[in-house]
Amino acid sequence: MTKVFTIDELKSVINMKDVVESVDRTFKGLAEGVVINPTKVTLDLGENAPYPPYDGFFNAMPAYIGYQDVAGIKWVGGILGERKKAGLPFISGMILLANPRLGTFKAVMDGAYITNLRTGAQTAVALKHIYKGRKSLNVGLYGAGMQGHTQTAAIAEVFDIDKLYVYDVYTPAAEKFQQDMKDVVKGEIIVCDAPEQVPEDVDAIITVTQAKDSFLKAEWIRPGTVVFPMGSYKEIEDEVILQSDAIVVDHVGQALHRGAMKSLADAGKITAESITTTIGELAADMYDLGDVSEKKILCIPIGTGAMDVAAAEIAYQRMIAKGMGTDFNITGE
Amino acid sequence: MTKVFTIDELKSVINMKDVVESVDRTFKGLAEGVVINPTKVTLDLGENAPYPPYDGFFNAMPAYIGYQDVAGIKWVGGILGERKKAGLPFISGMILLANPRLGTFKAVMDGAYITNLRTGAQTAVALKHIYKGRKSLNVGLYGAGMQGHTQTAAIAEVFDIDKLYVYDVYTPAAEKFQQDMKDVVKGEIIVCDAPEQVPEDVDAIITVTQAKDSFLKAEWIRPGTVVFPMGSYKEIEDEVILQSDAIVVDHVGQALHRGAMKSLADAGKITAESITTTIGELAADMYDLGDVSEKKILCIPIGTGAMDVAAAEIAYQRMIAKGMGTDFNITGE
Repeated sequence: MTKVFTIDELKSVINMKDVVESVDRTFKGLAEGVVINPTKVTLDLGENAPYPPYDGFFNAMPAYIGYQDVAGIKWVGGILGERKKAGLPFISGMILLANPRLGTFKAVMDGAYITNLRTGAQTAVALKHIYKGRKSLNVGLYGAGMQGHTQTAAIAEVFDIDKLYVYDVYTPAAEKFQQDMKDVVKGEIIVCDAPEQVPEDVDAIITVTQAKDSFLKAEWIRPGTVVFPMGSYKEIEDEVILQSDAIVVDHVGQALHRGAMKSLADAGKITAESITTTIGELAADMYDLGDVSEKKILCIPIGTGAMDVAAAEIAYQRMIAKGMGTDFNITGE
Repeated sequence: MTKVFTIDELKSVINMKDVVESVDRTFKGLAEGVVINPTKVTLDLGENAPYPPYDGFFNAMPAYIGYQDVAGIKWVGGILGERKKAGLPFISGMILLANPRLGTFKAVMDGAYITNLRTGAQTAVALKHIYKGRKSLNVGLYGAGMQGHTQTAAIAEVFDIDKLYVYDVYTPAAEKFQQDMKDVVKGEIIVCDAPEQVPEDVDAIITVTQAKDSFLKAEWIRPGTVVFPMGSYKEIEDEVILQSDAIVVDHVGQALHRGAMKSLADAGKITAESITTTIGELAADMYDLGDVSEKKILCIPIGTGAMDVAAAEIAYQRMIAKGMGTDFNITGE
């Protein structure tokens, strides 16, 4: 029998605090070798490929989490086109969990909710280990959409945010963000009306936009800043990458084949040797970035299925404990 | 809402004849470019990797089927170890189907039943196009387990089987096969007590065993035979591959990275240039093998997710038409 869970059941048992802890543990597991995460495989539905013309993709992201002894996969879509016209969010997804010894399927649940939480949590956990021991920081945020909210909520689980500068091409979105997040951000939220105002005196810059025009300029970045290009397309100038004192990624293979560094990697200007360390190595105390106060750091968490599967297993255990889920004879096992 | 289907619902709507037709159409689509099938990604749970030690794997196999306008993924496990001890079959799997324009998930169903049918169907469809116009043939079969039955049933959908030689390391299994399949095979089923008796006067040799010892010897293969190494491990001598007059595969990328040709490909003795054509090119009349009566042909269908997704979509349409399935608010969409 396989348990099928509704989105409401899932949302009732797991929150950002849980996912920040899970992501931290799972990054450590990746570095220790007890979390297995093959490079994700993309089904291109027109994001880059000419056919089919749906302006989207699905990524298959399997993982094994040794410290939970669970195998799972997230299949996650990011589609614009008709989906955007229908008013649906960019991301949709499902997660399957399996017993890795028996090969039986124990759970089917949503994958988008966990994707959103863990994408925020990745940034927060990376900042935790880059700024070891720090209690508070200032954040610059490009993009006041759903991920903008989630990134901020995740960072607020780990740090007091003293100042948050937010810019959105649609200023009312930034103003709405300011209202929405006023109880999450301890300090002040400053709405910027030009993108170059954001990097003022911040410790971290996060870009979560649909931009493809490399809007983030290298000349804006001060020493002592970590830049997180989190959007799906080209948000930052190549020079932001090339001038970095350290490059931190979540998964070396994926970082070279997808996201902000892909074009430089394809051109041979960035290689595996250009990558300083992984978030996992920082989490496991296997690498020390030294004094980061005057460093320009680039951090790229492309996203690994392990983060999703680990959070899904926590949710699964809690839902089972609460008697949630519906037994379904999907596979006859 | 997502429809969840039980294994009984699925089995009631689709049979081998359906899947043979679906596989034929989908191979053609692969060659025409209207079926998109990225190389599968393996989560190794100890099949080759040292950790975790579960003697198995899960493969993530996404595909887009243009002629059905459906996207889907099969996540399929092949596990020995504890699963075998529990008396469960080698393969377990689940299939998810999505609307590729909207990114919404429309179906969750079993993946093992369709895997078994389509793995048989692949062989039958390949033989159909290699032996164009032939009505009957003789088959040699190594392995009288579940896939032995399925391979035979599939070939019997396309050809009259005049003679079938079967060998199994466990002779009672071969004798049971003889009983089980006497109404499926038109002609005689001959149980062999030594492996070298199988290739006598056959047009096709199929190995569907768990052997890892290269038991199929090159010297046994006569001209005018197609060899299908269908097991998960090393069933045939490298010389069987190297002496072939033609090599036909389902997916060039996968054929070099998995299955019978992997070790030769890793050693550089087989490359993409060694591959003569694909089953899809034969199905689409884009390649002609010429007179095959004196040729030694090797055919390796590693298995593509497209075959599973296409068959699952047929089953989905039929189950919906019959009012089957249970609506479930898994994703909130």
